[in-house]
Amino acid sequence: MTARRDPVGQRSETVRRANLSAIVRELHARGPLSRSELVARTGLTRSAIRGLIGELTASGLAGEEPAIPLGIPGRPSPLVRPEPERAVVLALEIAVDSLAAALVGLGGSILTTTRVDRPRDHRTLDAVVDDLVGLADRVLVPTRRREAVIGVGVGVAGVVRRTDGLVRMAPNLGWIDIPLGERLAAALGLAVPLEVTNEADLGALAELRRGAARGVDHVIYLSGEVGVGGGIIVDGRPLTSVAGYGGEIGHIPINPAGARCACGSIGCWETEVGATALLRRAGRSTDGGRGAVDAVLHAASAGDPLALAALEETGRWVGVGLAGLVNVFNPRLVVFGGLFEHLYPYIEQPVRAVLDERALRAPAELVDLVPSALGDDAPLLGAAELAFEPLLADPARWLRPRAALLERASA
Amino acid sequence: MTARRDPVGQRSETVRRANLSAIVRELHARGPLSRSELVARTGLTRSAIRGLIGELTASGLAGEEPAIPLGIPGRPSPLVRPEPERAVVLALEIAVDSLAAALVGLGGSILTTTRVDRPRDHRTLDAVVDDLVGLADRVLVPTRRREAVIGVGVGVAGVVRRTDGLVRMAPNLGWIDIPLGERLAAALGLAVPLEVTNEADLGALAELRRGAARGVDHVIYLSGEVGVGGGIIVDGRPLTSVAGYGGEIGHIPINPAGARCACGSIGCWETEVGATALLRRAGRSTDGGRGAVDAVLHAASAGDPLALAALEETGRWVGVGLAGLVNVFNPRLVVFGGLFEHLYPYIEQPVRAVLDERALRAPAELVDLVPSALGDDAPLLGAAELAFEPLLADPARWLRPRAALLERASA
Repeated sequence: MTARRDPVGQRSETVRRANLSAIVRELHARGPLSRSELVARTGLTRSAIRGLIGELTASGLAGEEPAIPLGIPGRPSPLVRPEPERAVVLALEIAVDSLAAALVGLGGSILTTTRVDRPRDHRTLDAVVDDLVGLADRVLVPTRRREAVIGVGVGVAGVVRRTDGLVRMAPNLGWIDIPLGERLAAALGLAVPLEVTNEADLGALAELRRGAARGVDHVIYLSGEVGVGGGIIVDGRPLTSVAGYGGEIGHIPINPAGARCACGSIGCWETEVGATALLRRAGRSTDGGRGAVDAVLHAASAGDPLALAALEETGRWVGVGLAGLVNVFNPRLVVFGGLFEHLYPYIEQPVRAVLDERALRAPAELVDLVPSALGDDAPLLGAAELAFEPLLADPARWLRPRAALLERASA
Repeated sequence: MTARRDPVGQRSETVRRANLSAIVRELHARGPLSRSELVARTGLTRSAIRGLIGELTASGLAGEEPAIPLGIPGRPSPLVRPEPERAVVLALEIAVDSLAAALVGLGGSILTTTRVDRPRDHRTLDAVVDDLVGLADRVLVPTRRREAVIGVGVGVAGVVRRTDGLVRMAPNLGWIDIPLGERLAAALGLAVPLEVTNEADLGALAELRRGAARGVDHVIYLSGEVGVGGGIIVDGRPLTSVAGYGGEIGHIPINPAGARCACGSIGCWETEVGATALLRRAGRSTDGGRGAVDAVLHAASAGDPLALAALEETGRWVGVGLAGLVNVFNPRLVVFGGLFEHLYPYIEQPVRAVLDERALRAPAELVDLVPSALGDDAPLLGAAELAFEPLLADPARWLRPRAALLERASA
């Protein structure tokens, strides 16, 4: 329902920008592609591709190299590759038990990455911001990389206001209305946009772009540790909502006779499927974090009946909640991330069994279950994708020499 | 991420079609508009609007009349109005206790409508198709209206495969894998497209276009009778899913200790909030349909404590399920349709109280609750909107004289 304004001149500049965006998205998502592949994937003409690639190589965002002849007739098509060091993003993650940073180049190359464990009681905003700035300094070397940063993406295990990165609530960090975006932007001192988003939403984005959900339009990404979150992909795009608070699938009330949830409600899904419920069922202390969960998995692999029963019961509750989500979203794929990737070998069967019993047959027939392909780094990689989005949406703004392009645009 | 193909000629025909679509959508949604209003709403130039309106009036889809001068300076802008009888759609609805048909003209004028009660045991496909054809014959007079039909939209209380209108499951009709779309299209004998969709999805569409959700981008439409369904609007559009089976919010498992559901699962939301649960709580026979629910409402209005308690308890369960949906979708608005519109005065307070207790504060702060504006006809009106969609998306295909237009397009 887009009405486009005359005059034609303005329109063709819009089309040029959209076409540049299509090319850069392809290169970013897939890595080096021949000109012929770009023609096929974008639907643009060969001459249009040639001109746009010229602009990208002149600006340093892409490079060209002769293709390796494949023994098929005709001249081999030159290979266009994204230049990872010309435009990089800083990705940061605040998980419940750890902090992480990565520097990611155009095309998705991970240039550096680092993760440090942090105890749960060390979670004031000041401490977290200090730690993240330290991690950022560590990955932002050499200096040319700092200068190439075009954006910062931050994932946090909480409910985040999209407009300014205010963390409305992160019960497992003990945060309520914490101005993370503002404080972190000031402390990092990089003159580039910074965006904060829920980490499960970012995990979903990463799996969609580079992981288990690549090319799939309707996806539920389930993740969590103590808290349980989700990222929903609808029609190939992250589910949008009024303020960015959507996707909190861990807080669907599922058991009126259940436990008090960290959010204040009762019997939310996360009270039955989060790490705490698993540890309780396995007869272990619920304070142990990931290490304690690993011990349950280790015991299960050695045949410990209590650990196996705890995993089975957890899997059945995962299935109950997923049945509802499958009925609501009719997805093609459910990706098990975070904690659930680790549990997957043990819970897959009970989840499938409960889905068969509890989901409507029509949507249940169409859904596949898979573990995350990106593992625990999915949210961090999703934060990088978030930070790349402005460049992917309108690469023309990053082209050099800009003066000449602006002149041409207004001609 | 649209890459547009050269040459320019093809592109400008695409733009013309998109602009015609923008104008026809405005006229269909809002009724008569002055040319100035169309300029403001579509962003098109005055001269572009003049040319496109010329095409629409020549084809009979729109008419123009002098505007009433409003006492403001300048020449009054002519008023453009959609012509309701030039393009009409047939809307049909299969509810659990009734069947309905309507003939709706461009601009949303309801030309004729009719609804008949049907007992629940009179529900074979043959009987329903015969009845619907009878209703259609009744609304398709005079003959010129039959000739003006451009599409048929059908709403049914069930899970429907989008591609061919196969009803995968309609537990409250006792239907499994019933080829409704195919059989109805053959029996009606109208040479136009026919689409079948879940009736709650259609209710949501109607409320979005012409009812309580007009102009709202993120909406949950809750409806039902015995069964409970939902229509979800995300970013201004109906939620899409792999096969059209999404939106089955009545089948989120909410109470592991609850009743067996018609879908085969246990403790689905509809077992706690549908008409049967209300009647059971009010100590009445659960076979009575809408009449029995009306009796409970009548008793409640007379102060009957059992009826009031049954409504209060039902409202609390509505709130529990909605808390989960608010957390998942972060919507701006929840519209109470069908049964819930009738219950609304009694359940509003308990629903709000439970949302305050159970939903996350961040999304709960942003959501409003309202009763349906279109009442029991919302799904029928949504079926009409569904049938109009091809015309709204590309009105150029309906313009006369077509030969001349095709000539121009290929020039």
